[in-house]
Amino acid sequence: MRFVRFDLDGRTSYGLIEGDRVIPISASPFERWQAAGAPIALDRVRLQVPVVPQNFYAVGSNYAAHIRERARKLGIAPEMPTRPEPGYRSASALVAHNDPIVLPRDTTSVQFEGELVVVIGRRAKHVQETDAFKCVLGFTIGNDISERTWQKADRTFWRSKNSDTFKPMGPWIETDVDLESLRTTVRVNGKQQIEFHTNDMLFGVARFIATITEYITLHPGDVIWMGTEGASCDLHAGDVVEVEISSIGTLRNPVVASLP
Amino acid sequence: MRFVRFDLDGRTSYGLIEGDRVIPISASPFERWQAAGAPIALDRVRLQVPVVPQNFYAVGSNYAAHIRERARKLGIAPEMPTRPEPGYRSASALVAHNDPIVLPRDTTSVQFEGELVVVIGRRAKHVQETDAFKCVLGFTIGNDISERTWQKADRTFWRSKNSDTFKPMGPWIETDVDLESLRTTVRVNGKQQIEFHTNDMLFGVARFIATITEYITLHPGDVIWMGTEGASCDLHAGDVVEVEISSIGTLRNPVVASLP
Repeated sequence: MRFVRFDLDGRTSYGLIEGDRVIPISASPFERWQAAGAPIALDRVRLQVPVVPQNFYAVGSNYAAHIRERARKLGIAPEMPTRPEPGYRSASALVAHNDPIVLPRDTTSVQFEGELVVVIGRRAKHVQETDAFKCVLGFTIGNDISERTWQKADRTFWRSKNSDTFKPMGPWIETDVDLESLRTTVRVNGKQQIEFHTNDMLFGVARFIATITEYITLHPGDVIWMGTEGASCDLHAGDVVEVEISSIGTLRNPVVASLP
Repeated sequence: MRFVRFDLDGRTSYGLIEGDRVIPISASPFERWQAAGAPIALDRVRLQVPVVPQNFYAVGSNYAAHIRERARKLGIAPEMPTRPEPGYRSASALVAHNDPIVLPRDTTSVQFEGELVVVIGRRAKHVQETDAFKCVLGFTIGNDISERTWQKADRTFWRSKNSDTFKPMGPWIETDVDLESLRTTVRVNGKQQIEFHTNDMLFGVARFIATITEYITLHPGDVIWMGTEGASCDLHAGDVVEVEISSIGTLRNPVVASLP
């Protein structure tokens, strides 16, 4: 199933995607829901981020080539993490599929990072790896937009990773996913920049859920962004960036300059 | 005014404190509200965290003696920040006044950090320092419970600062505060551990709001924890820790061992 969150006639609702239509549902996918209302053409609705998470986890270093590439650019030795350690992002930076990524005035190097996003469906604490997927509702796509000058200069990721519009997420939540078969592709203006085996992570989804829930309760609607692979490149006003994950969908966002 | 969020008869509501009574109000203080219902004795209600923030900012190094003390314990030279840089905490760790702080099984050094908390009342972007308080609803108290072994060993603060129950906040939001007159006192089992001039920050509330909103929109209900001063000490099961900020109130939490 594909759960979508959308605006129509000034109201935000959830629905299920069937072909090129949306079947509205009566509540969020984190509650009891049922079909509620006539199907709507998908191109008539405005997509919203599929969930606004209360807790927003993000894995910084989870693919080998990305860690080597970042170390090279920082002029330091690459250091592979020896255990899973999540970081945080902020919901204030989220924007939906098709929404613009706005370049702040004083940016010099804004780059994409295409990521698999885990959407938690059930409250979970002290979960074993073998049971981890029981608390997962499904998966969506994130673009962990990053300002590299600030990422290098600042003590935290507050503006390098969390400036307004820096966290595109969507287009929807897909519940039926075979993780091992997924491939992530990032395109800028239609040209492929990177393509990788999505599940080729240092620490996988189940391991992260088990680790987090050793100390922290996961809640319905929480998201875990799983990190990205390889090198990135600078985005400029006028670009269109697409993150596709096979069998989930494509998250597409235009890049614009901030107003003067 | 003092806004309180409370449970009574299985329902969570907001109210205003008047003496030893709560006057229920019709909506949250972030919306239009009016008095709604008969006053209730304060000791009849169960306090909840005064707000569950969508975005949870926290300042790590904002008082000189605290920075020197942490550097000494880590065996490194103290490094004073040269500009305001917020970090993040996660709402999953929040607990209310009187709720227990639960020590995870494998902790060795869990310490308090008494902090002033800014509660944002209005959406704000590109705010000047001189206008910063226009977007503030009021102030509450936070205890930034920290596991020092993990804080030193981990790459992020995920479990050292965000384990379940590690973020007591409350007891209420006070709107009428003269920042310069405030004093913060932390007591363990009634014995004073530290006392400091709350506003003696490296970077104050207005400076942080101006800095954050240069890149990030602040939203109603967002909180900014302003950091702590001085040294801390270990907490043990059976302790009661109190953070008092003059003219705001006292946030009190018992410390308990986790279930075996």
